[in-house]
Amino acid sequence: MSPPEPTRHLRLSKDLPLDCGRTLVRPRIAYETLGTLAPDRGNAILVFHALTGDQYVASSHPITGRPGWWTKMVGPGRPIDPARHYIICANVIGGCMGSEGPASPNPATGEPWALDFPVITIADMVRAHAALLDALEIPRLLAAIGGSMGGMQALQFAVDHPDRARSVVAIATTARHSAQNIAFHEVGRQAIMADPDWCRGRFLAEGRRPRNGLAVARMAAHITYLSEAGLTARFGRRLQDRDTVSFGFDADFQVESYLRHQGMTFVDRFDANSYLYITRAMDYFDLAGASGRPLADLFRGTSARFAIISFDSDWLYPTAESRRIVQALVAAGAHTSFVELSSPHGHDAFLLDTPELNRVVDGFLRATEALA
Amino acid sequence: MSPPEPTRHLRLSKDLPLDCGRTLVRPRIAYETLGTLAPDRGNAILVFHALTGDQYVASSHPITGRPGWWTKMVGPGRPIDPARHYIICANVIGGCMGSEGPASPNPATGEPWALDFPVITIADMVRAHAALLDALEIPRLLAAIGGSMGGMQALQFAVDHPDRARSVVAIATTARHSAQNIAFHEVGRQAIMADPDWCRGRFLAEGRRPRNGLAVARMAAHITYLSEAGLTARFGRRLQDRDTVSFGFDADFQVESYLRHQGMTFVDRFDANSYLYITRAMDYFDLAGASGRPLADLFRGTSARFAIISFDSDWLYPTAESRRIVQALVAAGAHTSFVELSSPHGHDAFLLDTPELNRVVDGFLRATEALA
Repeated sequence: MSPPEPTRHLRLSKDLPLDCGRTLVRPRIAYETLGTLAPDRGNAILVFHALTGDQYVASSHPITGRPGWWTKMVGPGRPIDPARHYIICANVIGGCMGSEGPASPNPATGEPWALDFPVITIADMVRAHAALLDALEIPRLLAAIGGSMGGMQALQFAVDHPDRARSVVAIATTARHSAQNIAFHEVGRQAIMADPDWCRGRFLAEGRRPRNGLAVARMAAHITYLSEAGLTARFGRRLQDRDTVSFGFDADFQVESYLRHQGMTFVDRFDANSYLYITRAMDYFDLAGASGRPLADLFRGTSARFAIISFDSDWLYPTAESRRIVQALVAAGAHTSFVELSSPHGHDAFLLDTPELNRVVDGFLRATEALA
Repeated sequence: MSPPEPTRHLRLSKDLPLDCGRTLVRPRIAYETLGTLAPDRGNAILVFHALTGDQYVASSHPITGRPGWWTKMVGPGRPIDPARHYIICANVIGGCMGSEGPASPNPATGEPWALDFPVITIADMVRAHAALLDALEIPRLLAAIGGSMGGMQALQFAVDHPDRARSVVAIATTARHSAQNIAFHEVGRQAIMADPDWCRGRFLAEGRRPRNGLAVARMAAHITYLSEAGLTARFGRRLQDRDTVSFGFDADFQVESYLRHQGMTFVDRFDANSYLYITRAMDYFDLAGASGRPLADLFRGTSARFAIISFDSDWLYPTAESRRIVQALVAAGAHTSFVELSSPHGHDAFLLDTPELNRVVDGFLRATEALA
């Protein structure tokens, strides 16, 4: 296999119109590719990342030094394999790893955009991805794939570009954000905006960072990524480095220590404003809602084969949400496979070592390739 | 019926030993009573309140002016009826409505205790309640009853005072806090402690209040009190006072507006340190854990009849937790009734208008009274 290409930055040759009515002037997109594009350009797979993901799908993260976020799925011998596929993963607009976002310089001022950055949607992210495919001269994908917010983008891509993917894989996701989903995000946003170091969004210009607020937001969100049973199995009520409780407010329990660690390490790699913008995009996500049409109508005319995959312990985007997508797809006459996998790991299962997930994605991709 | 008595304050005649090894010197207990104690002193019901509750079980709250927190259950014509019962409800120690807590003056300094207040447990709260019963000269209760943290206290009371209640009603509760329960509380505590106005706990002495942090803690907790289905039915994705999204960070969605309101109104009536102490007590709660004995052993020898009640949509203390309690009670030979009620309201169902809950509690109390 070829080693991962270093991240590349592309300034789009065209402006990007946004759902809010504003336009990003030739925004910058940061992306990575793995593998080699086939002569017929038919082996490209676009991987969409989730809320706190980035383009480092299978190569080390430049800040944390940790392996890519989806090395279980992407890499040599994996279902998405650079020996066979040309793999593209781009940082979403609104993100903070090189694509245009609130931490990027606003061309009008030279200062970070901060809250002057336009509020974006999942459809806007997908519009930027499609523009990247244009620039890479890839007319049609072998597959568009993603989990969680990545799955939202995969579905949006299928709706907005019905002939541009031969297959779509949407994992642990939903066609619209629920009231409970919105509520958890709102807690995170309020935690960030309550931090005085947020400086009404201008923290970069002020040389500050709302670390505490962002850590609390991450902690609250992280609980929703795990299952109750998984937390009990992994931590239970076990104490951290002590035999008895401290009768204080230290992290007596392992689960507290783990959560604090999750919060503290996150703030080193993520921009607090990006967290606001991306959660907002997810909350606004309602694939059918904007049109007022039934979900099935949106999928009519798609040429893609679909694989919809959920996990039984995922309470953030429970299987019922996947069923709703499947129902619409089948009603639209789309070729649809639906699998609910069993896992103790809750929503996070899609990122972890889940052999059944790999078997399902591998089989589905190979079947799509065989249809060529 | 007699009108509710005004809140009374009792300074215990004895010191209160605590699980942490420290002692509260003659702590103050704030309580209310309704109804009249029968000549045989046999009609007393002790109501234990939940995390953010207080002694105002059926009378107006002095700060918010809102009705008591359990007027659906307690009052004329209700299952717990001042025409028939002598009803006692006391603010827990560690609370902020008059019982000794981190906002009370530390006798050693005259300043608020703040973090010098000892970390308390559910058993400590129950010890204070038992001392109150001593002071009121009530040898044995007709019933000990509570929901959520109130249910924990009711169970602890049954274990620590096996002959002091003829019946115990524990609603929407657990015999031990789970890893997920601890995790949500830890998010709330971190939100409070991250607020610079918390001043390392000394906010009262500094004339400040960690309003933002406490509001975020309340918002995160509030989501856990409701069910996903209930949130969807009540709010769904409906917008607040607008026809389209704002493409900004205002409360576009009704559920955001509702949550913000919950956060903002809470901080007017609750002490942030009390929130730390009481959540800590709940996290430490593991009825059997401290002893290392099976749960059933603890209930052996109890003379009480038990009613254990759960709600099918409660994911904070799901029915499985109640089943565990019931299993232990039955194994201990205790007279036990177990009911899982259906409700869309999640954990909050025990506070709301839930006719089935009232029928169950009413029937159970009347059966206990008939056994006199």
